[in-house]
Amino acid sequence: MANPVLVEVTRGPLVESRHRGAVAVSDADGHGIFTLGDVTAPVFPRSAVKALQALPLIEQGAADRFALSEEELALACASHSGEAAHVAGVERMLAKAGLKPSDLRCGAHWPIAQAAAAAVARSSAPTPLHNNCSGKHAGFLCVARALAVDHADYWRPEHPVQRLVRSVLEDFTGAALGEACCAIDGCSVPTWAVPLRNLAHGFAKFGTGRGMSGERARAAVRLRQACANKPWYVAGTDRFCTEIMQLFGERAFVKTGAEGVYCAVLPQQGLGIALKCDDGASRAAQAIMAAAIARFLPLAASERAGLSRFVAPSLRNWNGFEVGQARVTEALR
Amino acid sequence: MANPVLVEVTRGPLVESRHRGAVAVSDADGHGIFTLGDVTAPVFPRSAVKALQALPLIEQGAADRFALSEEELALACASHSGEAAHVAGVERMLAKAGLKPSDLRCGAHWPIAQAAAAAVARSSAPTPLHNNCSGKHAGFLCVARALAVDHADYWRPEHPVQRLVRSVLEDFTGAALGEACCAIDGCSVPTWAVPLRNLAHGFAKFGTGRGMSGERARAAVRLRQACANKPWYVAGTDRFCTEIMQLFGERAFVKTGAEGVYCAVLPQQGLGIALKCDDGASRAAQAIMAAAIARFLPLAASERAGLSRFVAPSLRNWNGFEVGQARVTEALR
Repeated sequence: MANPVLVEVTRGPLVESRHRGAVAVSDADGHGIFTLGDVTAPVFPRSAVKALQALPLIEQGAADRFALSEEELALACASHSGEAAHVAGVERMLAKAGLKPSDLRCGAHWPIAQAAAAAVARSSAPTPLHNNCSGKHAGFLCVARALAVDHADYWRPEHPVQRLVRSVLEDFTGAALGEACCAIDGCSVPTWAVPLRNLAHGFAKFGTGRGMSGERARAAVRLRQACANKPWYVAGTDRFCTEIMQLFGERAFVKTGAEGVYCAVLPQQGLGIALKCDDGASRAAQAIMAAAIARFLPLAASERAGLSRFVAPSLRNWNGFEVGQARVTEALR
Repeated sequence: MANPVLVEVTRGPLVESRHRGAVAVSDADGHGIFTLGDVTAPVFPRSAVKALQALPLIEQGAADRFALSEEELALACASHSGEAAHVAGVERMLAKAGLKPSDLRCGAHWPIAQAAAAAVARSSAPTPLHNNCSGKHAGFLCVARALAVDHADYWRPEHPVQRLVRSVLEDFTGAALGEACCAIDGCSVPTWAVPLRNLAHGFAKFGTGRGMSGERARAAVRLRQACANKPWYVAGTDRFCTEIMQLFGERAFVKTGAEGVYCAVLPQQGLGIALKCDDGASRAAQAIMAAAIARFLPLAASERAGLSRFVAPSLRNWNGFEVGQARVTEALR
């Protein structure tokens, strides 16, 4: 059966495009609090699980050994926009561990931020430091250094770093992660497909510490606090994840992934949220996540107003005229 | 009822994302030759009807009066990539009609072509000339000059130029175009929603001359030939519309529109094709159009091979690794 239409994009008097998707909200015991669509099909979480992928950085002692700051821990959890301070932060992480930008294996792409891309075009060309995943990769390299293993192949599924990451993901989601659900991510590390209900449960555990060792729970708190305190480093200027965490601080952790995925934690409510837009559109996934937060996080009136521009953003054309709206459907209101 | 899934995007062993949509293929008498999904719902054709929007340029004598070349007529039908020769061509069109770039009202955006965007970043900033619609707008301005009317508001629905365009669209599609289906396009001119079956019928007429005046039929031939002879000016380097018309010449006219729309003509078969991807994704719409051409245009083996990379394109990550594929489903094979 088709997943429900969760976002309608209007133009003038008509609906122009429609986005379908699925949403799972879970508590830390794995009880489904709310679901829309099929939450049992495997979904590649992509960058939405970067905070879980960053846990070995704390657990293996690399964060302490290399004296990583909160900005740098936030970068390890980030899909950053490639702005100057993001790039400088990743370079600093690498230098602290005695590594170089040329050790990164994420590939190069233009900065997500248009102003940063134009600045790069004026003076040079994009490098792996500008890749939105470079902070995560710098974190992997720091783990390899802390483990005292060869770091050259840190991105391969069989490398000790990625084995640690897989073990963390299995612990949080309760899913067995094998070849049948393994693919290559945009930045070349493995990505394992997991049902949305398991991802939601995993993030509820990440937000509460329930069902995990004390050490792992403390590592999760440290990463969540770093992101809450330095949200600009998790995404960047005018980005959704950054603005949501600026708005709510430690009350909401939220992280985007490619192909229309979002995961979030509402620690005070003990809830995890995971969603995917079927067609991979981030404009829709973002509106769905904003609506889910509006529904499950108790909000002051001013906070509700701050969220509304994400739940039903107005769409403007090249002359700045309002031409339509991307609005979440009744299914999620 | 939901439209069928027409494109699956895979990653490793699994389908990661899915695109639904509808397709209409019609002959010039309006007989539906093939349909998938709902072809009766109104769809904003956006830039997919630029060749129809350009007909007044011929019919009002502007093309002859200003001695527009085939390159310039192709630009009037184009969603160009903002490469240097596109920009120069639009400037030339304006100069021939005694107009300036500042007369354009399409708004500015960065060139679609990344190399062109980087070049602009190095030396200046994007202007309305770089807007993918600037050739269409230059055409509208030429029509206003030929009509000897004030050209300042050429983009407004009530301006004589847009009234002529609406009349052409009504003639081709057989649809009554009023306020209930009118919205503002990305470049600020009106866009009127029309069912896919009417768009397919309209393009079959555009490709055959059937059901229209001799003068209009000749104008259509002139525009189709300009695009077939100068396909680079209709889109640009590595763009789908350009590559398809380079492959097939006058045997296939194809034009993209925003939010997942494509229209095409197969003149020798007397067929028009119109499609929309529900969610607005151009990666899916392009694969669907390639599959529709492969199905309805008789092909040599080498041509079929040339098309296959658009029907099932491989997806590569930032390191160039093949991570998946966007493949058209059985429904359209």
